[in-house]
Amino acid sequence: MKRSHRKYSIGIDFGTESARIVVVDVTNGRTVSSAVHTYRDGVIDQRIPRTKVVLPPDTALQNPADYLEALKQGTRSAMRQGRVNPSDVIGLGIDFTSCTVLPVDEDWEPLCFKKEFRHDPHSWVKLWKHHSAQPEADRINFVAQERNEAFLKRYGGKISSEWFFPKVLEVLNKAPDIYRATHKFIEGGDWIVSKLTGHEKRSACQAGYKAMWSAEDGFPSKEYFQAVSPALGPVVDEKMSREIYPMGTRAGYLTDQMSKLTGLPKDVAVSIAVIDAHSAVPAATVTEPGKMVIIMGTSGCHMICDSRKVQVEGISGYVYEGILPGLYGYEAGQASMGDVFAWYARMLSAFGRTHETIYADLERKARKIKPGKCGLLALEWLNGCRTPLVDADLSGIIVGFTLATSAEEIYRTLLEATAFGTNRIIETFEKHGVRVDALYACGGLAERNKLLMQIMADITGREILLAASPHASALGAAMWGAVAAGSSKGGYDSIVEAAKRMARIKKERYSPNEGSRQVYAELYKEYVTLQEYFGRGANPVMKKLKQFHRSC
Amino acid sequence: MKRSHRKYSIGIDFGTESARIVVVDVTNGRTVSSAVHTYRDGVIDQRIPRTKVVLPPDTALQNPADYLEALKQGTRSAMRQGRVNPSDVIGLGIDFTSCTVLPVDEDWEPLCFKKEFRHDPHSWVKLWKHHSAQPEADRINFVAQERNEAFLKRYGGKISSEWFFPKVLEVLNKAPDIYRATHKFIEGGDWIVSKLTGHEKRSACQAGYKAMWSAEDGFPSKEYFQAVSPALGPVVDEKMSREIYPMGTRAGYLTDQMSKLTGLPKDVAVSIAVIDAHSAVPAATVTEPGKMVIIMGTSGCHMICDSRKVQVEGISGYVYEGILPGLYGYEAGQASMGDVFAWYARMLSAFGRTHETIYADLERKARKIKPGKCGLLALEWLNGCRTPLVDADLSGIIVGFTLATSAEEIYRTLLEATAFGTNRIIETFEKHGVRVDALYACGGLAERNKLLMQIMADITGREILLAASPHASALGAAMWGAVAAGSSKGGYDSIVEAAKRMARIKKERYSPNEGSRQVYAELYKEYVTLQEYFGRGANPVMKKLKQFHRSC
Repeated sequence: MKRSHRKYSIGIDFGTESARIVVVDVTNGRTVSSAVHTYRDGVIDQRIPRTKVVLPPDTALQNPADYLEALKQGTRSAMRQGRVNPSDVIGLGIDFTSCTVLPVDEDWEPLCFKKEFRHDPHSWVKLWKHHSAQPEADRINFVAQERNEAFLKRYGGKISSEWFFPKVLEVLNKAPDIYRATHKFIEGGDWIVSKLTGHEKRSACQAGYKAMWSAEDGFPSKEYFQAVSPALGPVVDEKMSREIYPMGTRAGYLTDQMSKLTGLPKDVAVSIAVIDAHSAVPAATVTEPGKMVIIMGTSGCHMICDSRKVQVEGISGYVYEGILPGLYGYEAGQASMGDVFAWYARMLSAFGRTHETIYADLERKARKIKPGKCGLLALEWLNGCRTPLVDADLSGIIVGFTLATSAEEIYRTLLEATAFGTNRIIETFEKHGVRVDALYACGGLAERNKLLMQIMADITGREILLAASPHASALGAAMWGAVAAGSSKGGYDSIVEAAKRMARIKKERYSPNEGSRQVYAELYKEYVTLQEYFGRGANPVMKKLKQFHRSC
Repeated sequence: MKRSHRKYSIGIDFGTESARIVVVDVTNGRTVSSAVHTYRDGVIDQRIPRTKVVLPPDTALQNPADYLEALKQGTRSAMRQGRVNPSDVIGLGIDFTSCTVLPVDEDWEPLCFKKEFRHDPHSWVKLWKHHSAQPEADRINFVAQERNEAFLKRYGGKISSEWFFPKVLEVLNKAPDIYRATHKFIEGGDWIVSKLTGHEKRSACQAGYKAMWSAEDGFPSKEYFQAVSPALGPVVDEKMSREIYPMGTRAGYLTDQMSKLTGLPKDVAVSIAVIDAHSAVPAATVTEPGKMVIIMGTSGCHMICDSRKVQVEGISGYVYEGILPGLYGYEAGQASMGDVFAWYARMLSAFGRTHETIYADLERKARKIKPGKCGLLALEWLNGCRTPLVDADLSGIIVGFTLATSAEEIYRTLLEATAFGTNRIIETFEKHGVRVDALYACGGLAERNKLLMQIMADITGREILLAASPHASALGAAMWGAVAAGSSKGGYDSIVEAAKRMARIKKERYSPNEGSRQVYAELYKEYVTLQEYFGRGANPVMKKLKQFHRSC
């Protein structure tokens, strides 16, 4: 049987929710078998598993036990399915999300495995999308800019809160006991490789893209780290390692323990870890300069290599041999991609089918949102702007979307924009000398949309009274009719008299809430800025879009 | 029975889809009865009724026969319900949408009633929201500005395509035979009053707000109209009337014919017509300066009076005694209000409940939209911007919403924005000297979202190749494993070799469509402008919105 003459390599892709294990025929790249092992604890962002510890916002952790379980179950499962003879497996490669970092002790045991630390989130793996280290990233950037640190240039002038040192500094700042107890901070991929081989072999890919390291310059200086935070000074020598290995290095072979765990022979060669996106570049056939590979998942990664070292604004970074040997590997990205569309579909599917139920749902949910909480701002010009710009070719805009934006937030924002527009009109009047002392409203919306009316009171800072008649126009006409008739006929000789007798306002009125008014006053300034910018020709994009719409 | 001693006035509100008729007790304003008569032909915007004539875009007509029918049926129905003795009715007032204008012959018969004209849309009533006279409005504004016409100041510096003379000039330009055959152009409200009373009594409200007339200055000069278009010079004297009556004037009493039609006695006094929004002001109890009345329907009208005459930017207009006697009546507005929310709910309700069906629906519909046709532009920063701005506090924006914007258009716009973002990254690279010769894609989106991939090819102007493996990262890891193993073990000594043998691209590839590329190249300039403006601090609104969101 021919299969026995073939050789195989196993690839393990440690992702965000699961690991995927493939057994690949080395001759032709054919995937012989494939298995997915879903992490039991998944992304830990609500509470620490099997404890009552609730996690703060922007936290995203993982459990390293899940990695080991994936290594064991996933590898065995894929091997079983592929009916491959373990002795024909020659290599094992690891790719991993990054920067995903954990603290370990002298025996490479994660601190979160220990009873005394596991209630502290900072003992766990901080997943790539753990976002609470922004203050630390700001500090790191600030000091680097002040000191004009050369490494900044490699990263488009700014490093991200997702990266290695912000996450480590967060441990130092928020859990100094964990920091002290940490023997090493290490990338998840490097940790797995160390576990597999028994040797600490850190990857140039992770170090280069996420830990401010380069082959030429090494890590930033002790002085720099000290300037960031005194206790951070010796971080590299005390908590990391300066031995960094280029892509393609063989890290070693499986330890006894790992051989038993995976069911693979001890002579399987293990490669240095690589970041998942970077791992995809050669898998897309690309091994030369000039060919961009875009990894399009929840977010987007744009990978390209070049023989020259150049500065590029706002990229994630460049690393010599970080993607391919002999080349500078450049990484850029879009922070969301599939996420945007998922958000949109989720938003739409949250609602039922009829107008009435949607309106009721939107109203009920939007009512609970505090002013300013939406994080959105709109210009309500869906049918152009009448006052003050008199321009039918203007159009609507909504700014501030995030992946957390809900349909009811957009709805509330449209209500707010409508009220801002009204306030703008009032302001325009007053600016030109027309007093506006009181506000009255009537019409279907004034009758039905209590939330809009309250927002309008809050934004204008004025009490709003409502006409009692639901048919104010018709009533007014009747009043004019009564004036036409005149008092001799039982009517009135003036509309003032007619109004005194024939017109009413409702008892209920809308009064501004002082707290809301203050928040909206701040937001209103932003509204005016947007309106001025888009409405007066500084950026005629709305008109151009309409031209496109008409001509296409 | 007491009722016989009471007196009543009838108000008829001629709206967009229907007329509402109220019978009101003159003593106390109590609505005794109310009826709605829906116009048989409604808003005519698809084809001329009972013909095969298809109407051009932005056309909105009405059938004056519907007004007469409403007068007859509606009045009789309301009177019947109210069980009011017709002899106790003393007045009849008319309010009407405006500017709603029709051409009539010497006998006050609408030209659209005549066989020889009814196939021409310009013989029909042009409803307030008839929007195809924009070129005419532009011409009217341009000449007025050139000649520094005083009347412009009363209208915030600009008149709207919805108003009287643009609609009349449109008839002259597009249907000169109709223009010639027209005895008078008249507002719908004035026409109804003329029919009711047998006298042409035009209202200062309509003339002042919609026909550039004022009590002090009358209409613009013959010379001005001549400069707009030579044949338009004598329009006022030939096709209109200079006799304009202030609010509250009694236009006259019912003619024999109208008395029969309505079932009301001939001695019922009929008032001068009034615009619907203005009619609501006194009905909201307001008869003095400083009190704004906002009529909140599909669009918004903001009405306020003042004893002084002042210039206000971008208002619809001010008219002395246009709302209330002895005061300047100011009107401002928002071109859409309830319409915005209706659009939003309609958008959401167009879809089913599950993600899968929504995605499929969006994809299927968005595929049919031509580039540029959405009229929308977005920044896809829902999770911040990575390259080139490295700023997690930026957020998404969508500009260009109109009332016609559909959910699938927003969806496509989000796809386009994603591709623009990618193109921006490519451009950033190239600007800084990194060549990008080819594009490869992999990942779940690249696998599944064919529309996105095509758009990405069109926007980048490049062919996009796809990795054959659906698990490119894992495959790459396996390749690295093979390199770690080395050729001696049956692996490879370099990733280049491994890629040659183990990596594949798909046969299918995405090639840019030249036509699409050109449209997108234009849109892309706008994308960059938006990105620069919001991304680099010129307008830090996104950050401020996030601060609000966090602190509220």
